[in-house]
Amino acid sequence: MGYPALLLSLLVFLAPGTCIDPRRVLRTLSSLHLPTNPASRSSVAKNYSVFYFQQKVDHFGFNNMKTFKQRYLLADKHWDKDGGSILFYTGNEGDIVWFCNNTGFMWDVAEELKAMLVFAEHRYYGESLPFGNNSFQDGRHLNFLTSEQALADFVELIKHLKRTIPGAEDQPVIAIGGSYGGMLAAWFRMKYPHIVVGALAASAPIWQFEDFVPCDTFMKIVTTDFKKSGSNCSVTILRSWDAINRLSSTGSGLQWLAQTLHLCSPLTFEDIPNLKEWIMETWVNLAMVNYPYASNFLQPLPAWPIKVVCQYLINPSVPDSMLIQNIFQALNVYYNYSGQAKCLNISETATKNLGSLGWSYQACTEMVMPFCTNGIDDMFEPHQWNLKKYSDECFKQWGVRPRPSWIITMYGGKNIKSHSNIIFSNGDLDPWSGGGVTKDITDTLVAVTIKEGAHHLDLRANNPLDPTSVLLARALEIEHMKRWIKDFHDNVRRQS
Amino acid sequence: MGYPALLLSLLVFLAPGTCIDPRRVLRTLSSLHLPTNPASRSSVAKNYSVFYFQQKVDHFGFNNMKTFKQRYLLADKHWDKDGGSILFYTGNEGDIVWFCNNTGFMWDVAEELKAMLVFAEHRYYGESLPFGNNSFQDGRHLNFLTSEQALADFVELIKHLKRTIPGAEDQPVIAIGGSYGGMLAAWFRMKYPHIVVGALAASAPIWQFEDFVPCDTFMKIVTTDFKKSGSNCSVTILRSWDAINRLSSTGSGLQWLAQTLHLCSPLTFEDIPNLKEWIMETWVNLAMVNYPYASNFLQPLPAWPIKVVCQYLINPSVPDSMLIQNIFQALNVYYNYSGQAKCLNISETATKNLGSLGWSYQACTEMVMPFCTNGIDDMFEPHQWNLKKYSDECFKQWGVRPRPSWIITMYGGKNIKSHSNIIFSNGDLDPWSGGGVTKDITDTLVAVTIKEGAHHLDLRANNPLDPTSVLLARALEIEHMKRWIKDFHDNVRRQS
Repeated sequence: MGYPALLLSLLVFLAPGTCIDPRRVLRTLSSLHLPTNPASRSSVAKNYSVFYFQQKVDHFGFNNMKTFKQRYLLADKHWDKDGGSILFYTGNEGDIVWFCNNTGFMWDVAEELKAMLVFAEHRYYGESLPFGNNSFQDGRHLNFLTSEQALADFVELIKHLKRTIPGAEDQPVIAIGGSYGGMLAAWFRMKYPHIVVGALAASAPIWQFEDFVPCDTFMKIVTTDFKKSGSNCSVTILRSWDAINRLSSTGSGLQWLAQTLHLCSPLTFEDIPNLKEWIMETWVNLAMVNYPYASNFLQPLPAWPIKVVCQYLINPSVPDSMLIQNIFQALNVYYNYSGQAKCLNISETATKNLGSLGWSYQACTEMVMPFCTNGIDDMFEPHQWNLKKYSDECFKQWGVRPRPSWIITMYGGKNIKSHSNIIFSNGDLDPWSGGGVTKDITDTLVAVTIKEGAHHLDLRANNPLDPTSVLLARALEIEHMKRWIKDFHDNVRRQS
Repeated sequence: MGYPALLLSLLVFLAPGTCIDPRRVLRTLSSLHLPTNPASRSSVAKNYSVFYFQQKVDHFGFNNMKTFKQRYLLADKHWDKDGGSILFYTGNEGDIVWFCNNTGFMWDVAEELKAMLVFAEHRYYGESLPFGNNSFQDGRHLNFLTSEQALADFVELIKHLKRTIPGAEDQPVIAIGGSYGGMLAAWFRMKYPHIVVGALAASAPIWQFEDFVPCDTFMKIVTTDFKKSGSNCSVTILRSWDAINRLSSTGSGLQWLAQTLHLCSPLTFEDIPNLKEWIMETWVNLAMVNYPYASNFLQPLPAWPIKVVCQYLINPSVPDSMLIQNIFQALNVYYNYSGQAKCLNISETATKNLGSLGWSYQACTEMVMPFCTNGIDDMFEPHQWNLKKYSDECFKQWGVRPRPSWIITMYGGKNIKSHSNIIFSNGDLDPWSGGGVTKDITDTLVAVTIKEGAHHLDLRANNPLDPTSVLLARALEIEHMKRWIKDFHDNVRRQS
């Protein structure tokens, strides 16, 4: 899911009383695509075919008979019609081609599991727009953007594949997804166990709702990542907010700030909340993509990027001006590692993909994740979670109000032990792990922990620099999947 | 569910080319209420309170913020806040007060299970009308009449009860329902195992969809009931159709028919399909309520009513006129056992309840149950199942088209073994048992068979004339429910 949910929340609690800024939302959401990482790209060639499947716009009512084309990608090079399997990527909030190219794990295991790979695009993202360019026009058009409709799309798509591809019918399907897609994979198995034999839910914060997790957990983990990556690193960041506040209190200070941070546009006092939010977002991003090898997110990044960033943030007790210069050096690692950027743009949008608005709607309806900071246990300015304000902002932007408890009502919250065959994997470095399942619930609802892992590291392609913890995690995941596949085929044999 | 789904289907295949007759639909649907049976009324006093809960009209979208009042009944005389339970009746297609008064089983077991009883009305029935008198106006207003929305109502209602009734939170909830309500109870457990610890699904034909069951199964069971209840009974009925066809071919024959059958209105040739359908419906009704003691359905009935009816149908080889006179005697048992009726009305509607239109909409959307007859293995004129025609009729009446595979897609069809804690009970005499689960699927998905049982006899109140098979069934059901309750409380204790 990337951090859009977070950022939308932050937007609300960072800039109380202001509207959700569509520019920021756009920029924010643009970055939700998984990092492209040339260095880590699997040697496995990613040859897939692109298809479209006609889906009902509304699975849960009969009055609206409209349909739309859902895009999906299919790769069957290693698929064995007898005794093989189908790995089904439960697409999340973005272009499915990005996800396909960045989920190297599925490509890496295809041969071993004799698997057909299917990557299904989530409705309202990429090319799968229920109402074309009007999809985001208003609440009426967005009404069908829910996790339930997306899961129903997946079900109908799988039924279609089983009907139309000879040999597919007698094959076990395994749902695989990361982040919000990991939540979808888990929920898919919970709600449709007759369709998928199991699910790999990577970095899926299914408990980042209501009060299942303290609202400050997420930012505490971000802070810990910085604390562990360099002496005084988190303290320096913590002190930077006041430095910015002080410097921005005068016109000359604002001018100096803009210059020192190499911003593309001058700063006004009103921009300061946005500036701080943009910086905060950078630290959050870094925590999510703190991978053990060089990767490419919005910008190319070195291995263990937080360590590199923290090299500039070792001294919290310098004057404000020096502190901000150091902050700039740190930001510059993230925004200008390639050295190509002429200036840093705090309202930059990295993609024009309309679909990226989708998550901000989802965060305003089903995906209500409370976040907060206190400036003591974390390195951020204190901000409380304010549902009322959040709801009002959502109503202003989309004409809808969130239902904070709906996801728990629908998918069970912590009371899920009657389900089976779900792997919940989480990286200890990943801020989203705080809302994830990190302890086994039953023998078949298992938690896999990746000590050196950031956001769904396990779904990325094999890399020579992979730490042992992720190799072990993947091995465990494959073991479970093999068992599900075997159980399925044993069952088929027993029945025939 | 009664037989409305059947009758709607029959309407289509019996009178090809004609519209669905709203009068007939009304009459048909009116009879779906469970039989009132003064003789069998439990000695347990049925004291309940009536409440209303504000439900969202659309649980699955955020654009429509409308709400409506769902009615529910609550009885807590025997409820124990510590170590007790909540028995939740998943209301089906009718007025919840009727169901409450006719589900004596729940009242009979309340004390033993220290249970609070909740009877939740199904949306679009009784008083629970999402748009008041406009609820059935058109497809737009009916759009929220689905099993998924009904289940979501139940979930939200239970969450509400747990929030607001001190002691309810730590109580296991068991879903109980019969017929369509039994399907809802089973699906409730499948989709929301975090809300209900188990389900008693009485006479729930969850496989009466697509081709899971041959379409002639239902009418074959009806026929068997008549065959076993009297010598030549089913053969006599089989011959009656041709006798009617022959007699109705002349004006004087039509007049004689109307007179002999004591119909309230004269017959035209165009009425003959309706007449035959009305008679067929009578035989189906009788099969459903073929209870071992006197009961009161649309009209009061004697014990084992088919046996009584069959006393008049022992000779198939008499002339047409004699045959029809005998058919009249048989019909008269059903329509005039009390001797009060002056004439028989083939388009009679027994209730003016608007809500009763609901099932015909449901049968035209989700609840597509294929029925057929062949006149060889059953005692009816041959009629094929014709989905195209069925769909066209639905489109004419409601502006919607059925999705025949949706229920299976949603709820899993025969592939449900990963679920748990559901009792499927079926009576061998009940035509709906053909589409039900009559063999254990796993240790916790169990089938209970009632040899002498018609439609959900087990849910009716204790009666001195209850056959051993239903006493055993109820004992088994109670045993399972006690185990679910114990498991729940053991778990709570273990966690605290």
